[in-house]
Amino acid sequence: MSLQQLEAGYAALRKRGLKLDLTRGKPSPQQLDLSNDLLSLPGAKDYLAENDVDIRNYGGLQGLSEARRLFSGLLDAPAEQIVVANNASLALMHDTLVFALIKGVCDGPEAWSRQGEISFLCPVPGYDRHFRICEDYGIRMVPVRLNDDGPDMDQVEALVDKDSSIKGIWCIPKYSNPTGAIYSDSVVERLVAMETAANDFRIFWDNAYVVHHLTEDRISIANILERSAAHGNPNRPLVFASTSKITLAGAGLSAVAASAANVKWLLERLTPRTIGPDKVNQLRHVRFLKNQQGIFELMEKHRQLLAPKFNAVLETFEAELANLPDVKWTTPKGGYFISLEVPQGCAKRVVTLAKDAGVVLTPAGATHPYGKDPEDRTIRIAPSFPVLAEVQEAAKAVAICVQLAAMERV
Amino acid sequence: MSLQQLEAGYAALRKRGLKLDLTRGKPSPQQLDLSNDLLSLPGAKDYLAENDVDIRNYGGLQGLSEARRLFSGLLDAPAEQIVVANNASLALMHDTLVFALIKGVCDGPEAWSRQGEISFLCPVPGYDRHFRICEDYGIRMVPVRLNDDGPDMDQVEALVDKDSSIKGIWCIPKYSNPTGAIYSDSVVERLVAMETAANDFRIFWDNAYVVHHLTEDRISIANILERSAAHGNPNRPLVFASTSKITLAGAGLSAVAASAANVKWLLERLTPRTIGPDKVNQLRHVRFLKNQQGIFELMEKHRQLLAPKFNAVLETFEAELANLPDVKWTTPKGGYFISLEVPQGCAKRVVTLAKDAGVVLTPAGATHPYGKDPEDRTIRIAPSFPVLAEVQEAAKAVAICVQLAAMERV
Repeated sequence: MSLQQLEAGYAALRKRGLKLDLTRGKPSPQQLDLSNDLLSLPGAKDYLAENDVDIRNYGGLQGLSEARRLFSGLLDAPAEQIVVANNASLALMHDTLVFALIKGVCDGPEAWSRQGEISFLCPVPGYDRHFRICEDYGIRMVPVRLNDDGPDMDQVEALVDKDSSIKGIWCIPKYSNPTGAIYSDSVVERLVAMETAANDFRIFWDNAYVVHHLTEDRISIANILERSAAHGNPNRPLVFASTSKITLAGAGLSAVAASAANVKWLLERLTPRTIGPDKVNQLRHVRFLKNQQGIFELMEKHRQLLAPKFNAVLETFEAELANLPDVKWTTPKGGYFISLEVPQGCAKRVVTLAKDAGVVLTPAGATHPYGKDPEDRTIRIAPSFPVLAEVQEAAKAVAICVQLAAMERV
Repeated sequence: MSLQQLEAGYAALRKRGLKLDLTRGKPSPQQLDLSNDLLSLPGAKDYLAENDVDIRNYGGLQGLSEARRLFSGLLDAPAEQIVVANNASLALMHDTLVFALIKGVCDGPEAWSRQGEISFLCPVPGYDRHFRICEDYGIRMVPVRLNDDGPDMDQVEALVDKDSSIKGIWCIPKYSNPTGAIYSDSVVERLVAMETAANDFRIFWDNAYVVHHLTEDRISIANILERSAAHGNPNRPLVFASTSKITLAGAGLSAVAASAANVKWLLERLTPRTIGPDKVNQLRHVRFLKNQQGIFELMEKHRQLLAPKFNAVLETFEAELANLPDVKWTTPKGGYFISLEVPQGCAKRVVTLAKDAGVVLTPAGATHPYGKDPEDRTIRIAPSFPVLAEVQEAAKAVAICVQLAAMERV
């Protein structure tokens, strides 16, 4: 198509006055409906958990036994090595990092904040909220390339080997946000085995999409806690997860699984902060989800709702963008995002064009540290929230914007 | 009685093999029963809050409007100046202090942690968990005397006037833990008007017992936010509260009320930490408590359960200890504690004697910074949790231990 034709198409698009939002990985109301039973659980007489723990009263810093068992199945870690907390795994990651900053980790020489400038490796494209925590606390972010099988380990190994200021790495190991990358066994092996100049190095393993499959292929990845222990680095990984995208996004449970020493450290650090998590919500979730099988069945229902939306985007991109040079996108097997790469220097322009046509996208650059995508190429597409028809419309609108922005550059 | 008689009495006590716990201010199961309706609320179809906010999804960092209105009545502050969070006001206090340490307060020159050693004033006797936060983060604690009408303001003013390392003070202004002290208007006035060498000074105003009356006298105290603003120090107070001892101790709501600038600052600080609090639990509480009147009616039921237990302790102490020199105790009009003062050097001994007789008390010294009561005199009595008959037994046992310890000293 000529620039003129594309401009005419875009003008027609603007006239339609769309109001669509593809910005964030929010479950749709239909997905949330799947967990409405939670809203009347556990029921007025159901307040005694295992070992006669009164869930209504104070205490139980590590979380209910039965809630820890639920995550034990999910994360393939012993219940003793799990802490179940309140509604946001982001808060657990934040607090863990803040504790490390102020007090140091369990096997560290001293507080990270007393070791001069510290750094984190940030596989890109990645999750803006991970990067935000680092930015907020003045932790230097070092981007490393994220491939389809995880971070570029040659890069990672070369960096951590000589730079003791590098204290950690952010990982979303399965169905990564936003590319859908799945960490291979070999990448996991190198992450846990590599020599790090910092002896208080931590892998923030945000297993946010552990059971969030989009295909019938329920992919499983290497058990990082076991592999890390096998290599003599048991304290390196901190595994985070939540039920935010299993049950209710704002009212789920979060958890962390780690070595016994890390768990002991975290509980010591949490002691001044709180007497315990909301155990009623923990028992509520145990009653509702029941067990691993219950989670799988629920996630299958999520898949039925989500997969058609992802397919709608992918089919539209295939139909409209397949022949455009320097344009590609990921085909995730799970998670909440598609990562769209447009010609260099075009991402911001696409987001602006889309916005002016009533389709709000995540700001260009959000997938990179400091919000700066040096090539201005990556756009995160989040098709979960709108209804299918709107997702289709939005995808078509985005395709028009991409075509126009690409043509403008020529 | 002679030492011999007291020892015989104590020996008889030990033989009874009691197993009683007066350590912590926990509501009893009967009190928790009052809020069992929460366990099936809000109900499967009730998930839209005001302005069509879907409580199940992400977002709403400041808390639901209707939940903020609930605390607005409770704390006598505008709903816009309130943040409603998850289940623990201790966590809110902890996080506020940590944010101030790492990033500084909204009107401060820089992070507290970059200003050398900092200090907090600690009215004593006070709350061990306040002190624990300071101890954990290396904040020097400066004890000041707590009178019946609040901290000794001559002491406080003299200290803050010349020492810019003093960044804050812990206050439990109403029915204080553990003495039941009630801050007078004059003390509040002096706290908000005083000159402080530190221009980033904060009052941590833990209004934990704001509606927790033990008598028909529903005492109200000065509105510190209004008074502080009137004196040109709007950002000085941070007012904390929770429903932990209104509804469910482990699964209530917490809130902070403060100046607009403080609230803006806190929301900015919370943004990297979480996408929002558990709004389902907030709506659950709004549905259950309804309004200020609903809270008052519920608190009256708590009073019916609590007051007899406090009376049992007070009557026992009056009968057994009234004539003992250097022994006195508080008669609180609200809250969760009685503070018992024994002869100098006897508190630890009383706690040990009681423990050996099967009555667990809060460790002597817990009411003082670093767990060190220089006079070894103060014992905190928490009569809320055991049933009335057990409270009576425990009080009698404590009285025997006090008598014996006092006699041993003679």
